[in-house]
Amino acid sequence: MNSPPRGAGWAGTADPAGSPASAAAARAAVRAGDRAPTAGVAPGSTQANLISVPRDWAYDVLLFCQRNPKPCPVLDVTDAGAVSTVLAPDADLRTDLPAYRVWEHGELADEPSEVTSLWRKDLVTFLIGCSFTFEWALAGAGVPLRHIEQSRNVAMYVTDVPCRPAGGMHGPMVVSMRPVPEESVETAVRVTGRMPAVHGAPVHTGDPARIGIRNLDEPDFGDPTELRPGDVPVFWACGVTPQAAVVSSRPPFAITHSPGRMFITDVRDEEYAVP
Amino acid sequence: MNSPPRGAGWAGTADPAGSPASAAAARAAVRAGDRAPTAGVAPGSTQANLISVPRDWAYDVLLFCQRNPKPCPVLDVTDAGAVSTVLAPDADLRTDLPAYRVWEHGELADEPSEVTSLWRKDLVTFLIGCSFTFEWALAGAGVPLRHIEQSRNVAMYVTDVPCRPAGGMHGPMVVSMRPVPEESVETAVRVTGRMPAVHGAPVHTGDPARIGIRNLDEPDFGDPTELRPGDVPVFWACGVTPQAAVVSSRPPFAITHSPGRMFITDVRDEEYAVP
Repeated sequence: MNSPPRGAGWAGTADPAGSPASAAAARAAVRAGDRAPTAGVAPGSTQANLISVPRDWAYDVLLFCQRNPKPCPVLDVTDAGAVSTVLAPDADLRTDLPAYRVWEHGELADEPSEVTSLWRKDLVTFLIGCSFTFEWALAGAGVPLRHIEQSRNVAMYVTDVPCRPAGGMHGPMVVSMRPVPEESVETAVRVTGRMPAVHGAPVHTGDPARIGIRNLDEPDFGDPTELRPGDVPVFWACGVTPQAAVVSSRPPFAITHSPGRMFITDVRDEEYAVP
Repeated sequence: MNSPPRGAGWAGTADPAGSPASAAAARAAVRAGDRAPTAGVAPGSTQANLISVPRDWAYDVLLFCQRNPKPCPVLDVTDAGAVSTVLAPDADLRTDLPAYRVWEHGELADEPSEVTSLWRKDLVTFLIGCSFTFEWALAGAGVPLRHIEQSRNVAMYVTDVPCRPAGGMHGPMVVSMRPVPEESVETAVRVTGRMPAVHGAPVHTGDPARIGIRNLDEPDFGDPTELRPGDVPVFWACGVTPQAAVVSSRPPFAITHSPGRMFITDVRDEEYAVP
């Protein structure tokens, strides 16, 4: 839990960046006990948010995602009870994330490192795109990644922007924030705009108060990230949004990933870039 | 039913192309009895496929769409019983398409011009992206549109490519075909690749037999389109795919649009282009 983010060091494995082998190696380290955030891990491999709900809530969750595609771009939905996904057929969804959150009636009940004993035959699992996926594209375009430089989890905030509700599911949008040098904002918008499956272009740039964020130093999830002189805060829709909806909507049971501790898939980042 | 496609003539209304007013004018003509195909109608306005199913089939349909995003890109899903959509709030989904198909246990039961008396409180309606939407981008890039030149509905074919099933929903992919001059294929791929919400890049170019199409002169839906010398057939995933799934999967009841006779929304085409 207290190991530092692994940063660029992980790029130095023998496996090519973005290959299924390098993704599998990262998951193996997680399964062996590494609970650190996954920002900077397995460069080139798509990362995903996870939410599992009972089958009788699955339609509302899927419709909520369809109606809120910026925060909730669906990469895969499993059949009820399944423990694997087409995004990484050899992975086990119950053990291969660094940390999970267990929710009962919208309350956080536990934050375990695996959920095998809690799995149910009626659980439908949603894998949702994660902005960690586009960080390599940002870095490649010369946009600095301050949270990686500072060895921190990305900062995430609950906004006052409501999502479009769907049946029993409703709640506010959650965003991740990255400080971007003012002269690089246009590049950051352009690069991430090409990747709608992993949140796409930012939803807001500049004054945090405009989207209901009072204090950048106190993120709701993850770690605060320091802005350097000339940086402006840039906000992307975040796959933690379904967790905020769980808090608001109080389904009887749900399992999610712990914010910033993602599922690493076998899919290469570029698969989700629109040419 | 036998009026010819309206072609470019419709561009000559007083309302700006792609404006909600020009979309509303096109829908008003439909409501007044025009049952012609909508290829070439209301340039700049996004067109949509429609499928309405009882609520207890809605999850399988939505999941089928999520798992088959090229043929089934979802633009909106209504609440059960609703007769309007956020895509065109003033339109009535029961009357504003040129023709509907009514399905009972996978059999075509009727093809009426409106479905008000058949509407049910448990019907959930899916609006799915349509390739007519990107035709203006193709024309703007200099790619000729043979079916419009020939005043015909686009040609559509059932392929032997299976969709990924979802619960009770399964079936083959349906494609639309446009003849494209060989030197323009690259442009057609690039232009439509930017519009994943309306089927995106082609799924196949060239030999129809490779995707199970025996005879281009005998489309399963729409009209045959003549290739000119130097043209190659280019195939895009098609929003008629859910209708093929209805035939294969036999839900007790469904309403769809009639192929090529689409719902014209208030949304501008460019809204669905990735920058």
